[in-house]
Amino acid sequence: MSDIRSLALACRDAVPLLATLDTSAKRALLRDMADSLQRRVNNVLAANARDMQEAKDKGVQGAMLDRLRLDDARVASIAQALREVAGLPDPVGVVTRSETLANGVLVERVRIPLGVVAMIYEARPNVTADAAALCLMAGNAVMLRGGSEAIHSNRAIAAALHEALRAHGLPEAAVTLVEDLSREAMVALLQLSDIIDLAIPRGGEGLIRFVTEHARVPVIKHYKGVCHLYVDRAADLGLALNLLIDGKTSRPGVCNALETLLVHRDVAASFLPRAAAALGERGVALRGDEATRALVPEASAADEDDYAAEFLDLIIAIRVVDSVEDAIAHIRRYGSDHTEVIATSDELTAQRFVQSLRSAVVMVNASSRFSDGGQLGLGAEIGISTTRLHAYGPMGAESLTIERFVVRGAGQVRHPESRLD
Amino acid sequence: MSDIRSLALACRDAVPLLATLDTSAKRALLRDMADSLQRRVNNVLAANARDMQEAKDKGVQGAMLDRLRLDDARVASIAQALREVAGLPDPVGVVTRSETLANGVLVERVRIPLGVVAMIYEARPNVTADAAALCLMAGNAVMLRGGSEAIHSNRAIAAALHEALRAHGLPEAAVTLVEDLSREAMVALLQLSDIIDLAIPRGGEGLIRFVTEHARVPVIKHYKGVCHLYVDRAADLGLALNLLIDGKTSRPGVCNALETLLVHRDVAASFLPRAAAALGERGVALRGDEATRALVPEASAADEDDYAAEFLDLIIAIRVVDSVEDAIAHIRRYGSDHTEVIATSDELTAQRFVQSLRSAVVMVNASSRFSDGGQLGLGAEIGISTTRLHAYGPMGAESLTIERFVVRGAGQVRHPESRLD
Repeated sequence: MSDIRSLALACRDAVPLLATLDTSAKRALLRDMADSLQRRVNNVLAANARDMQEAKDKGVQGAMLDRLRLDDARVASIAQALREVAGLPDPVGVVTRSETLANGVLVERVRIPLGVVAMIYEARPNVTADAAALCLMAGNAVMLRGGSEAIHSNRAIAAALHEALRAHGLPEAAVTLVEDLSREAMVALLQLSDIIDLAIPRGGEGLIRFVTEHARVPVIKHYKGVCHLYVDRAADLGLALNLLIDGKTSRPGVCNALETLLVHRDVAASFLPRAAAALGERGVALRGDEATRALVPEASAADEDDYAAEFLDLIIAIRVVDSVEDAIAHIRRYGSDHTEVIATSDELTAQRFVQSLRSAVVMVNASSRFSDGGQLGLGAEIGISTTRLHAYGPMGAESLTIERFVVRGAGQVRHPESRLD
Repeated sequence: MSDIRSLALACRDAVPLLATLDTSAKRALLRDMADSLQRRVNNVLAANARDMQEAKDKGVQGAMLDRLRLDDARVASIAQALREVAGLPDPVGVVTRSETLANGVLVERVRIPLGVVAMIYEARPNVTADAAALCLMAGNAVMLRGGSEAIHSNRAIAAALHEALRAHGLPEAAVTLVEDLSREAMVALLQLSDIIDLAIPRGGEGLIRFVTEHARVPVIKHYKGVCHLYVDRAADLGLALNLLIDGKTSRPGVCNALETLLVHRDVAASFLPRAAAALGERGVALRGDEATRALVPEASAADEDDYAAEFLDLIIAIRVVDSVEDAIAHIRRYGSDHTEVIATSDELTAQRFVQSLRSAVVMVNASSRFSDGGQLGLGAEIGISTTRLHAYGPMGAESLTIERFVVRGAGQVRHPESRLD
């Protein structure tokens, strides 16, 4: 796998150039990438048609085929996303803390790029442009290892990005598309601990497990969301119903969709039948415990697997609980530390819920669907980290940098006896 | 290795308790740990005498034996370090950012503990208490895997910490000393990706490599410091000499000591003979390139290995360079991204040096020996990260936490059509 190593070394060689680009140069680059992509829309669509045909020939269908598909509007929206990243604040060079110590030394914490980021993802071709843009805005070079289903689309998108890099006098290797999609090449990539500063796998359980098992480089996982809504006995039930419908039905196939509903026993009789009716109207299948099924006979019986499931579909698991503590215990046991929601008007209960859970995002009286970098004010996201290190929850451009120390003195030494003057 | 798994599960069970301890409870716990350690000083010294005897029997000597040795003063200083950590600001619960979005949703970033930290270290027994204290102050449980040479000392120190945990009604497993020091047990520990949130290896190349190869949990390395001083042509040479003597001779065995001196050609003739005399007086052996040896005949010839070496001893590698760019290129090639120093009065040159290097700590006109959590205002450190992720450079209690999102709304949903009321 010396090829992968050579590719990665070329990618790393771009790092010093990228790290010192000023904000306006990065913005111009990203806008030119957007223009280049739109100019090449026909190439991109032709490549995508090839991917679609090959996928259909392999029997791919439904949501997976839809994620792969590009059209004029989707390419325009990928270009628009590049322009939006170009408009984000530049995280590089930001001084996050500054302190003058007693000895007169000035200690600053300053953001610098991570270096080389390896993005490992599955079907959606938009990730190729999105990830490249966020990495570049944060001064990083990037190795993109997408799924084989999207290889033609990814190649066409990367060609558009490369055109803009060339026009700016930057090496194409700054955005390197890995075209060897063998497992051996992926393993080789994940073991380049002297070159790759961070690997971000974004995908299903198989991909995440493979990366975790083989990586010798730091990994931040973007893994599943088994998101919960707990309807407390002090909840405004109308509000809770809105959160439930938004969380479960507005886009069931994404990681911040709700998967499990927990309802306090005291409000179960007034809430569950209404909730079941509203969910049923929207085609959601219900799976509940005995207490739920006593109130909502149309629910089928939930088993352990249902409570641990990320359905990504119009299915919801339901359980009646005796207290907020029971809800917390359930979430600790079955959750994935992604996003949890409580509906309550009781501030103390809300605090207990927030403080007792260690999920990346905890919401009080707001929809789980806000658990997204764009929605939470980061501007754009490279994904949602479920690794409790470096970045936890939605990751924006800033999460692709690291704070380091810059210290300025006037000749201070630690041991006075070192002074010769 | 089911034993390691059971130990780790018990350790993790302490996490919810520790995460919700308030600041005063944590401070009282750490102070009681200090008292307990001082009460048990005789046990600790007796245990240490056993370690020392066994080490001597194995032929251990010199600096390594000294690092292992405890006496009354050293135990008092470990206790004092516990009290100092007790006085640090509590990082848990700190709101680092707060923003109300256009839709009225309040988005906060709040620090929470990482969870379970596995500390893997070598001889010094003080790390047992220091690491436990910082982990606890940040609300984490900790697995301590020290070196076999210090096992009796570590056990005696852990017993003192456990006494205080019991007195506070907390499980001893919150601070778990791993007593199975086999390689198999270490591998088992490093693969508990469902339990351990972070492993911090702190030691030599062999340990770091072993951990990197076997870990399935996130790792932040505390690796070597090949620290450079670059004396620019615009340097105040007296100031530069002070930095050189402090960096090289005040404590040569630590990671923030200088290992390589780079001198601009224009000042080499005036600086190097003075520097060589001062270093020579302090017993430092010089290894230089040809230009150095022309000015300083007592220097032996430096080879490639000398420039990459972390001597941790009274040896220094020297090279004459033609420009700040040459110095930067040398550091990029041979450095370990730990700490670099420039001595210059030229602000533009200083900026170029700072911006072109990606080391964790870059100093302008200040000694490399300040590259230390205590010296840089963190209060105490668990070590110095050379991993460019999560924390880079000195890591204090705050680096043992992670920011998560807490979102508060009044029933906001992402898609208006989800509203039923």
